[in-house]
Amino acid sequence: MALDLTKYVASIPDYPEKGIVFRDISPLMADGEAYKQATAQIVQFARDKDVQMIVGPEARGFIVGCPVAYELGVGFAPARKKGKLPRETVKATYNLEYGISELYMHKDAVKPGQHVLVTDDLLATGGTIGATIDLVEQLGGIVVGCAFIIELDALKGHEKIRNYDVLTLMHY
Amino acid sequence: MALDLTKYVASIPDYPEKGIVFRDISPLMADGEAYKQATAQIVQFARDKDVQMIVGPEARGFIVGCPVAYELGVGFAPARKKGKLPRETVKATYNLEYGISELYMHKDAVKPGQHVLVTDDLLATGGTIGATIDLVEQLGGIVVGCAFIIELDALKGHEKIRNYDVLTLMHY
Repeated sequence: MALDLTKYVASIPDYPEKGIVFRDISPLMADGEAYKQATAQIVQFARDKDVQMIVGPEARGFIVGCPVAYELGVGFAPARKKGKLPRETVKATYNLEYGISELYMHKDAVKPGQHVLVTDDLLATGGTIGATIDLVEQLGGIVVGCAFIIELDALKGHEKIRNYDVLTLMHY
Repeated sequence: MALDLTKYVASIPDYPEKGIVFRDISPLMADGEAYKQATAQIVQFARDKDVQMIVGPEARGFIVGCPVAYELGVGFAPARKKGKLPRETVKATYNLEYGISELYMHKDAVKPGQHVLVTDDLLATGGTIGATIDLVEQLGGIVVGCAFIIELDALKGHEKIRNYDVLTLMHY
């Protein structure tokens, strides 16, 4: 039976700063059946895209993307903050909702021409996902889709990735 | 056919500092079949332990633990660095190989009596895994096992967790 996944999102008012309602998917991940159903929806979205690699930004993007990679039988490559990857990297700079930041990927993480699905827990302003897409494309990968558990519609992140095929499980 | 997983570990000399050989599992995660086989070994280890929750420390512990949680049909709860969890937390302090640090978990992440499998990519001095076990036990969880992709035997992390059932896929 399909669960109502909205019941597994914790809403925290005024976090990380006043006026912002933080949407926390940790209750969803902590429930085996909810986690399975969310993953299954992303796997379904990926099925006809010949996905060959999942890429997710640090760190909740790992929790979303790793079981999808496992179920599809493909690899997972992380996009990480500065200083976290030991080998040669590419870099993308972006504006966060609350500042500026950088993401990195190993240069061999994606092969040219590989079909990549990008995953994260939440689409807000689109800064993080835009940088992740940038990294994949710097490496010659083809982003065949982006999947999120939650989208905060008012922040218009969707506009930044309007040229990509996007799945979002829940809108706020 | 069983892969030789050692072929999917990158060894980086003098990283993060001179004299240390960093063992990087990102090639293993990036290969769908290697990732699947590593996960299958951990799932096999977990099978007779009635595991009800997987807990892994930020951030590579997520990549190891999440597909295990998915395959077992249980939830995943992260142990995170300061400031990453929006709700009420418990905290553990520990000595790292390269300094001192803190880990946190949400207070509701593990229920009293739950059987928990703790996962991470690498067992070095055992500081991170010790703190993760501490957090689970503060919450009343029962650590029924610890699983690692790699153990650095010379750093004797195993001694810190000698009272727990441990699986390690590769020793260096």
